[in-house]
This record gives sequence, structure tokens and C-alpha cells, in this order.
Amino acid sequence: MEPINLAEKLGQFSEHWSPKIVADYNGNDVMVVKVLGEFNWHSHPDTDDFFLVLDGEIDIEMRDRTVTLMAGEMFVVPKGVEHRPVAQKEAHLMVIEPCGTPNTGDAATAVTKDRI
Amino acid sequence: MEPINLAEKLGQFSEHWSPKIVADYNGNDVMVVKVLGEFNWHSHPDTDDFFLVLDGEIDIEMRDRTVTLMAGEMFVVPKGVEHRPVAQKEAHLMVIEPCGTPNTGDAATAVTKDRI
Repeated sequence: MEPINLAEKLGQFSEHWSPKIVADYNGNDVMVVKVLGEFNWHSHPDTDDFFLVLDGEIDIEMRDRTVTLMAGEMFVVPKGVEHRPVAQKEAHLMVIEPCGTPNTGDAATAVTKDRI
Repeated sequence: MEPINLAEKLGQFSEHWSPKIVADYNGNDVMVVKVLGEFNWHSHPDTDDFFLVLDGEIDIEMRDRTVTLMAGEMFVVPKGVEHRPVAQKEAHLMVIEPCGTPNTGDAATAVTKDRI
């Protein structure tokens, strides 16, 4: 029952593509993540994928288009749509996914989402 | 399938306590809202209530404590917890609630959430 300062949470780690859980919302993990470079192509068959850029800029590449997001911009990748986040420079995001969603779309390759 | 610029969306309206839907996430409304003054005490028996302050500062008063949120800070009011948002000056928020959740906790007094 404390305010959650997203910048302060982001200051607690440095690794890329390793989302950290900062809050729960109705069975969803609210996370912050630092990204740099290209992630893998993946999709989530059972869930939308929520992105809000807090700092920096990312491209969300989809097979038929690319959406560029700056700080203060958000996007929801619809369920089942293949996508690849790409950041030319380090960017900081808030992301939301149902608890247990593998970040790579595949439990075999997904990182563990620690709570901070 | 376009980026959603939250500040640009907030620039499209001026009324307070009237959330505008900007995106869908798994059956949830992602909304922006301008707030000023005291809202009513209410709770949502079936859902958590997600708040992220984009600009300004708000107090989320609960019966046993008050959480003060500045820009870049978020908080999730747990399901069923009575609360009252209060803003001494105009503040801008992103909020998330399941589609159809009355903003006042009561369908009889809730505002219609327009999509922008």
C-alpha cells in the first residue's frame, strides 16, 4: 500500500529484456523493463501485450507494419499478433501482461520475472 | 494500430473526472482523465483500480491511510477498498479498469466513458 515510483524501480537494476514486477492488477503483472537492441519475434496466443514508453524510444515491429513509440506513448499489441520490440538506444518501458505470460511467448525461453 | 500519445489525447478535452478510453487491453479500458478537487468515496467490489499519474499530483485517500502520487508514480487500489481521489491542482492520470466498470462504483451515478 505504497506509491510505486517507476523511475525508482528502474534504478534498481540494469539488465535488458528482464521485466520486473512492480504491482498486481486483477491477475496481471505490471512491470518495468529496460530494453536495448532487438528482441525475438514472438506472439502471445492468449493475451494482448501492453507497452508504455517511459523514457527513450522503441519500434514495435509487426509483420505488416512498424509502430514507433516515444516517451509518453503507448500501444497494445493484439493477442496473437507476431511482433518484435527493437530499441536503438536503451529505453524504459512499463508493460502489462497476465501473470505467468512468458515474455518470449514460449515458456522454454522466457525469463523469470522477479518482483522488485 | 497507431501509437497512442497520452498527452495528445489529454489535449482533446478539458472536463474533470470524465475518463476517456484510449485503448483496449484484454477487456480492460485504458483511459486518460483530468482530475481536480475531490471525487466521491467509492469502491469497486469486483476489480482493482489502476492509477498512474502523468502530470501533477493526487492523493488517493483510503479509510485507513492516504497515498500521495506524483508524476511517474502509480498505485493499484485493491478490489473492494473504499477510496477517494483528491487533487489540489489539476492532475492528469492514466487509469485502467475492466470495460463497463462504473467510475463512481455505482452505475446510477457513473459517467459515460467516451472513446477518443
